[in-house]
Amino acid sequence: MNERTNESAQSRSENVTWHDSAVTREAREERRGHRGAVLWFTGLSASGKSTLAVEVEKALFRGGYFSYVLDGDNVRHGLNGDLGFTAVDRTENIRRIGEVAKLFATSGALCLTAFISPYRADRDRVRELMSRSRDFVEIHVSCPVEVCEERDPKGLYKKARAGEIPNFTGIDAPYEAPEGPEVVVETNVYDVEACVEQVLDYLKNHGYISSESRLRAVSG
Amino acid sequence: MNERTNESAQSRSENVTWHDSAVTREAREERRGHRGAVLWFTGLSASGKSTLAVEVEKALFRGGYFSYVLDGDNVRHGLNGDLGFTAVDRTENIRRIGEVAKLFATSGALCLTAFISPYRADRDRVRELMSRSRDFVEIHVSCPVEVCEERDPKGLYKKARAGEIPNFTGIDAPYEAPEGPEVVVETNVYDVEACVEQVLDYLKNHGYISSESRLRAVSG
Repeated sequence: MNERTNESAQSRSENVTWHDSAVTREAREERRGHRGAVLWFTGLSASGKSTLAVEVEKALFRGGYFSYVLDGDNVRHGLNGDLGFTAVDRTENIRRIGEVAKLFATSGALCLTAFISPYRADRDRVRELMSRSRDFVEIHVSCPVEVCEERDPKGLYKKARAGEIPNFTGIDAPYEAPEGPEVVVETNVYDVEACVEQVLDYLKNHGYISSESRLRAVSG
Repeated sequence: MNERTNESAQSRSENVTWHDSAVTREAREERRGHRGAVLWFTGLSASGKSTLAVEVEKALFRGGYFSYVLDGDNVRHGLNGDLGFTAVDRTENIRRIGEVAKLFATSGALCLTAFISPYRADRDRVRELMSRSRDFVEIHVSCPVEVCEERDPKGLYKKARAGEIPNFTGIDAPYEAPEGPEVVVETNVYDVEACVEQVLDYLKNHGYISSESRLRAVSG
């Protein structure tokens, strides 16, 4: 009911105050049996972000937790379908993803995002959006660019080398690795299962999920 | 991993295919014990949209269902903080809300939205975004503008009459009532409890939620 029509730029978002809905976040988290949070996977193309996010989600689902993956496939088509790949559009892409991930976290879900998100400033802005600092778990999916280029499941590196994709991260555009990520997984050293375990261990050890399966807790 | 850098406009969102994450929507819905869907509340300012959405959510939560309210308060500050109130921005506002609501529905949640959303074309576009037609439940929160103006809890009608808010829906901008909404609640005729019951009855009668409380089903 805060919507109104006003053409003046200075009126943007004024008289609008954030409120949680009457069901509090705490009540949601208690009901769900885990904390809401954003698990932000960042890394080069073909480093294994999406694979890892999907596998972590499967493990969380088996454990009885509520999670959802945002990735290029469900965001680039929809919410960010109006954005291209210019520097400005990439920043806006990450901003919107951050805002949506925040909404999911506030709803009590674990929101996993899998985007290259190469710029430190963009990721740090997302971290600062969160209402609680621990809502943002940055997971650096680390893998040398040579290995990523060798994997190249979609042939994107090949196209980039051929000059068909300018400003390709890792080739002719920079990837700024996180300086203080909560988790670093090395997909060139450990297999998927081990990397998934590493993420789950972080979540357990820091109280995002319990050590026990939520499902076992419900049925036991 | 579908992110890449490309300055050409024609490349927007190409080579990007929608996929559900490995945990299927059906599996989520089975686990949650209800369908994911968007409950889209539309109506004049002060018609009772937010009140009703929050009360429906409280009832859903008591029943053990997972829902989340998107309204001006948590969207205008964040995701749509860059948008003003011009016609173009209002359309983009509704588009983004529709896309986010779709993501919540896909995650298996019941997503309640409370926005005036005065234009039929904007709402119909959101309906068409959905991957299943029944994902969109349009709820017309109907109340004569005179009654809304009398309520005027935020003094917005008063400001609009004083010319301080141009293009105010119902005063000097149109409200296009839904032509075939799934539910019409008349907040000037029935009290909040009755309107909430009406929405819940629709959800039960059309298989979105079960007639039994989900919590009772779990504990019983």
